[in-house]
Amino acid sequence: MRENANEPFVRNAWYIAAWPEELEDGVLARTIMGEPLVIFRDADGKAAALEDRCCHRGAPLSQGWIGDKGITCGYHGLVFDGSGACVEIPGQDKIPAQTRVDAYPVVERQKIIWIWMGDAGAADETKIVDYPYHDQPEKWPHKKATFTIGANYMMMMDNLMDLSHLAYVHRKTIGGSPDAHAAAENSVTETETGCVYERWMMNSPPPPTYVKAVGFEGQIDRWHHFEYLAPSTVIQNNGAIDAGKGARENRDQPGLQFQIIHHATPETETSFHYFFSLANGYRQDEPEATEQLFTESYPTFLEDKVILEAQQANIDRRPDRELIAIQDDRAVFAARRAIKKMIEAEGAAKAAAE
Amino acid sequence: MRENANEPFVRNAWYIAAWPEELEDGVLARTIMGEPLVIFRDADGKAAALEDRCCHRGAPLSQGWIGDKGITCGYHGLVFDGSGACVEIPGQDKIPAQTRVDAYPVVERQKIIWIWMGDAGAADETKIVDYPYHDQPEKWPHKKATFTIGANYMMMMDNLMDLSHLAYVHRKTIGGSPDAHAAAENSVTETETGCVYERWMMNSPPPPTYVKAVGFEGQIDRWHHFEYLAPSTVIQNNGAIDAGKGARENRDQPGLQFQIIHHATPETETSFHYFFSLANGYRQDEPEATEQLFTESYPTFLEDKVILEAQQANIDRRPDRELIAIQDDRAVFAARRAIKKMIEAEGAAKAAAE
Amino acid sequence: MRENANEPFVRNAWYIAAWPEELEDGVLARTIMGEPLVIFRDADGKAAALEDRCCHRGAPLSQGWIGDKGITCGYHGLVFDGSGACVEIPGQDKIPAQTRVDAYPVVERQKIIWIWMGDAGAADETKIVDYPYHDQPEKWPHKKATFTIGANYMMMMDNLMDLSHLAYVHRKTIGGSPDAHAAAENSVTETETGCVYERWMMNSPPPPTYVKAVGFEGQIDRWHHFEYLAPSTVIQNNGAIDAGKGARENRDQPGLQFQIIHHATPETETSFHYFFSLANGYRQDEPEATEQLFTESYPTFLEDKVILEAQQANIDRRPDRELIAIQDDRAVFAARRAIKKMIEAEGAAKAAAE
Repeated sequence: MRENANEPFVRNAWYIAAWPEELEDGVLARTIMGEPLVIFRDADGKAAALEDRCCHRGAPLSQGWIGDKGITCGYHGLVFDGSGACVEIPGQDKIPAQTRVDAYPVVERQKIIWIWMGDAGAADETKIVDYPYHDQPEKWPHKKATFTIGANYMMMMDNLMDLSHLAYVHRKTIGGSPDAHAAAENSVTETETGCVYERWMMNSPPPPTYVKAVGFEGQIDRWHHFEYLAPSTVIQNNGAIDAGKGARENRDQPGLQFQIIHHATPETETSFHYFFSLANGYRQDEPEATEQLFTESYPTFLEDKVILEAQQANIDRRPDRELIAIQDDRAVFAARRAIKKMIEAEGAAKAAAE
Repeated sequence: MRENANEPFVRNAWYIAAWPEELEDGVLARTIMGEPLVIFRDADGKAAALEDRCCHRGAPLSQGWIGDKGITCGYHGLVFDGSGACVEIPGQDKIPAQTRVDAYPVVERQKIIWIWMGDAGAADETKIVDYPYHDQPEKWPHKKATFTIGANYMMMMDNLMDLSHLAYVHRKTIGGSPDAHAAAENSVTETETGCVYERWMMNSPPPPTYVKAVGFEGQIDRWHHFEYLAPSTVIQNNGAIDAGKGARENRDQPGLQFQIIHHATPETETSFHYFFSLANGYRQDEPEATEQLFTESYPTFLEDKVILEAQQANIDRRPDRELIAIQDDRAVFAARRAIKKMIEAEGAAKAAAE
Repeated sequence: MRENANEPFVRNAWYIAAWPEELEDGVLARTIMGEPLVIFRDADGKAAALEDRCCHRGAPLSQGWIGDKGITCGYHGLVFDGSGACVEIPGQDKIPAQTRVDAYPVVERQKIIWIWMGDAGAADETKIVDYPYHDQPEKWPHKKATFTIGANYMMMMDNLMDLSHLAYVHRKTIGGSPDAHAAAENSVTETETGCVYERWMMNSPPPPTYVKAVGFEGQIDRWHHFEYLAPSTVIQNNGAIDAGKGARENRDQPGLQFQIIHHATPETETSFHYFFSLANGYRQDEPEATEQLFTESYPTFLEDKVILEAQQANIDRRPDRELIAIQDDRAVFAARRAIKKMIEAEGAAKAAAE
């Protein structure tokens, strides 16, 4: 596997299509895996995703609006329901069966709208990533956002699987000193669905943001826990408690903990929608704690955007150039192996079906 | 004929190159059918169109200026007359005959500058669309404009041939209710040069703009009359008189009438210059009536621009996807048949000549 | 040689990579001959040019910073010295030999940073253009600048070898009347390394800028002297002394003289970095004289940029169209012959080596 090449997309998997908040104002136009989609709630409030193209004259449905029966095309008024079927043609009584647009399976669960871009018959809801924290707002108050990054989605997975970038990309924000990072203990464990990357900084000084958040007074035992769930999800748990209190055995002691779900939904081969939701597991009844975590983290994600886009542009310019691995790339390669397995399985299933 | 494909251009036809007003400030650069042209008035005031490329070093003539003998190249000063012949080379006495640029037949008539992009020998001035209204400013005071739309020019003809879009594209401006449109009587008549699309809304309430324009007090008989003249012109006559006064037999009764010439000159396969001129056939001695008609109409043409460009972008993305016709597409298909006939005739003539 | 085609680049030659002033703030990203480079001073202060792409994950080194040992990648902290060798990998003791990026020969001389984009073994420093004036700031105080022009670099050489453009491109600035230019005596002499284009305007009225600069009171003998040094340099000496004082025999008499080095380093096939440095050989101890010469010249170079970019766009649109030479093109063709000789020699050497 050449890690600088763009691999085929894993289509038979659930990806985040949108945060529910994004549908509050009506219709959302979003391209996923090269397909322009319109995402909206149908007459029953159920989230739906259709190709963003009226079958009559090709106008984007996303320039239309939601009516009683579904989404109305803004050119000539044809109406489609969430299944893609045309339910109204102005001035015409009969609606031929072929008057329809493509629809994609969509499931809304745990305040996330998931989409399946592959074989609809294989869309198995049990494979949706479990993220119970959104359903526990008292314990895990949270705030979500999304933006688009001009790089292959796997570049983001690489980035999250390699914390050595913290001291460089984020040196002016959350980075900390290179030495502190070099002294950390890292472990990478391959799992059935991806891998777990864990890093412990034992008996270390608390970073200023941690002190500000929960008021540590001495040294701390600090962890980063990243779980990669192929193809596109990383669930991150960061935290710290006072040093020497047995953090490795029990993280749920008084201290600091936060939770992030990162998700990269391919827009094209060289861009993705980056979804993230940050939950603070401390000072849960202070909305400003949630706000502060979000406000401090958001700019660091933009720092990643800058470097990933520059990296992708360089790779596009010379896709033939080999990249050279370093020791810190262990988790990156574990993640790459997990996705390679999915791509191969999908290829084999497709070949068998033909 | 696949209506989502870009057909070959009809070259042996007259297209609007410019409004005369556009040459008032000198030199106009405009691309027509993929050819960058410079349009200007020569030393005698005659409108001319040359390729926008000096034959010496390739600089655009449109960056030059008009002098005594013709258009002067802004790089090294070569001068060309309206026939494309070089009439001056600085520092050089003899001008070789091949020192010239391509010229296109141009005719100025009825305050319109027409151009012929095809075989110059076949440029027959009797085929220029007749638009006498520009020569009757007392009866038909008018105002012109042009802008470029990023879609194949036939998309505009489709748009004009299908009034069912009014209730959707223009629902916030001139649209009116879908029901009123659905109740209209539509007729489509194929003609030798295109087709006529007529719509009558008998005994209907006057729209607010009509009341504002001429003060109707009761119900009206209202018509839209569209004549498509292949390949690129639509002449529109709209109007209304008090209901029951015999509008079908005689439209020239006291009431409201306005006249529009719409013209779409291909710039590229996926863009065109949209020319329009609006004439008010009422309150002719009040310049503000002309201004009001123009000011109310202009934004609605921009609404068409938005939808056409979105439509074209979608079609470019998936040119293989079929479109599905609906009942309201009758006039669209009549117009498409007319242009298909021209394209075939041009192909046959070309084949015969070879 | 088709002068509207883009010829292969001459790679075995020295080009200006940067003015030293451009490295004062650290790291410079610049594409030369299609290669994105990072140009910087290494730990010893020596100018260096590397490919702008870390060999680890492809991030641009120009987004990094200069440290004690060299340039640090802003993604994961790898450090490279000026030879392209990796000298540090965070968290890793051993550095494999292949961990390196491409480096290009760079020489800093006479306040110019030169780069060699061809076969490094053939990089002969004696072939660097001699420009002693930068080392004589008391006699030739000067000011430098650079900007990028969207045209093949040879278009700029053409432009400088053809002064007939002055009266047109620069008619509103330094142009002077077409008649004065037409009356000038021009001579073109081919040399071993290019050609010399000289123009004398004897017993002519001084242009206003000359009077302003040094206060001429009567007629002057005025010269333009352009030396083209293939592939990319033009050294210009302009001046004037009072008429009848023997300017042709001795230019170094009291009067006005200025010196310009023009250099066009290819960025891509259709763009180049235009470097220029202007030196005033009069009123040398008045910094405002240098500033005035620069301020008057800079906008005229922008006029060239406008016309060259328009010319290139036209040529790109129709690369098949022939251009037609005129009498004033003598020096242009002499320069084209000189570069053609270099291209052929490079091709022959390459063929022999294979």
